[in-house]
Amino acid sequence: MRRFYWPDITGKHITVTGQEAKHISRVLRMQEGDMLILFDGSGIDYYCTLTGNDADSISVAVVEKKESGKELPVQITLCQAVIKSDHLDYAIQKCTEAGVRAFVPFLSERCVKRPDAKSAGKLVERESRIAMEAAKQCGRSYVPKVGDIVTLEKAAEELQNKNGLKLVAYESEEHRTIKEALREQRCREIFLFVGPEGGFTREEVRLLEEAGAVSCSLGELIFRSETAGLAAAAMIAYEYMGN
Amino acid sequence: MRRFYWPDITGKHITVTGQEAKHISRVLRMQEGDMLILFDGSGIDYYCTLTGNDADSISVAVVEKKESGKELPVQITLCQAVIKSDHLDYAIQKCTEAGVRAFVPFLSERCVKRPDAKSAGKLVERESRIAMEAAKQCGRSYVPKVGDIVTLEKAAEELQNKNGLKLVAYESEEHRTIKEALREQRCREIFLFVGPEGGFTREEVRLLEEAGAVSCSLGELIFRSETAGLAAAAMIAYEYMGN
Repeated sequence: MRRFYWPDITGKHITVTGQEAKHISRVLRMQEGDMLILFDGSGIDYYCTLTGNDADSISVAVVEKKESGKELPVQITLCQAVIKSDHLDYAIQKCTEAGVRAFVPFLSERCVKRPDAKSAGKLVERESRIAMEAAKQCGRSYVPKVGDIVTLEKAAEELQNKNGLKLVAYESEEHRTIKEALREQRCREIFLFVGPEGGFTREEVRLLEEAGAVSCSLGELIFRSETAGLAAAAMIAYEYMGN
Repeated sequence: MRRFYWPDITGKHITVTGQEAKHISRVLRMQEGDMLILFDGSGIDYYCTLTGNDADSISVAVVEKKESGKELPVQITLCQAVIKSDHLDYAIQKCTEAGVRAFVPFLSERCVKRPDAKSAGKLVERESRIAMEAAKQCGRSYVPKVGDIVTLEKAAEELQNKNGLKLVAYESEEHRTIKEALREQRCREIFLFVGPEGGFTREEVRLLEEAGAVSCSLGELIFRSETAGLAAAAMIAYEYMGN
């Protein structure tokens, strides 16, 4: 059944306008009585019947709502250093496919790209749209939130108040693998820090450790920044698979 | 220590020419006595001293050779359907980072892109270069081979003669996860089939199963074709981590 994103779902009768309405009525030429799924990004699928079909809006009646059942059994927040735009786009798109629940973009010492306030706002908007499109494309009914860009210090400070397992992917970590870290502490919520192109400094890793994080390696091979989050998310999904 | 790719390493004294020589002598201005690493893509690092520095060539003496020790304990061959070029580039680059040992590009029913003989040759050349650059960048001394483009029938036929675990990532597989498949049969060599944008047909999966493959899912979420190989490779690396 066709799925459409509509952020404002309340009550039994919903009116959809704009691009999605045009797509439903003009491109797909759906008719009264046809079934479709709406989702508002909260993880719930609304099974609907098309009840009205105007030039610029369509109306539907909600027949049934249910959890999509596609989310991972573990909630992953990816704290991703701001990197070159196309690489960041890639990280957000792929990690949404892999089931990441939320993104916290941050600036650290070796970040090359340092957007000012205005372009930071635009960047977050752009990445939010990429997350929405990727969620729709891969069949998720939950749309990951992309938070505002913060400093690493701010991210570390906020981390202290969180429950869950806090991980730093650190290529110089020689003792603890992500597998060991995941098995030391079983949590339903994981915060994963991935550094910029040049990696974290030792002081930054220490700062995150003081905020309760453990550093771990993703293996012998060094992933690029935009690949590390996806590889780690796939590994976490694998660890929790079947649980 | 700086690492350079040089495909022809025999004996104790080696002459490097072309781009790599220029990079060493003109860009990096390395001097006699400086140490560097050469690798020929076979998985061995050659620790060398620079002994001569001409305009267009440099000479080195091999001091020591050793295995890089960075390869996964399991050899993954990714049999990847031919997809849009930029997506294929991406799959080859990222899967090289993730430790895949070899690529077999193939054509199946739902492949949209179908290069003729000439462009097929160019495509393989291009992807081989991408694999080499990705290997160099992520610190691998082994450069994955990119095979010629074959039909799925041909790939299935060749599969029959191989030992190891043969997996098909199939989004309609509802019973067996990749985790179960990896734990049913412990192998040091894994052949992983990833379909094109539109996926495999049921008949194609049956063909691969007849050739000894088992179909498995990568989880509830549907990865794009270019993401599936990387996610699966990360999951396999995770399963074998610490072994």
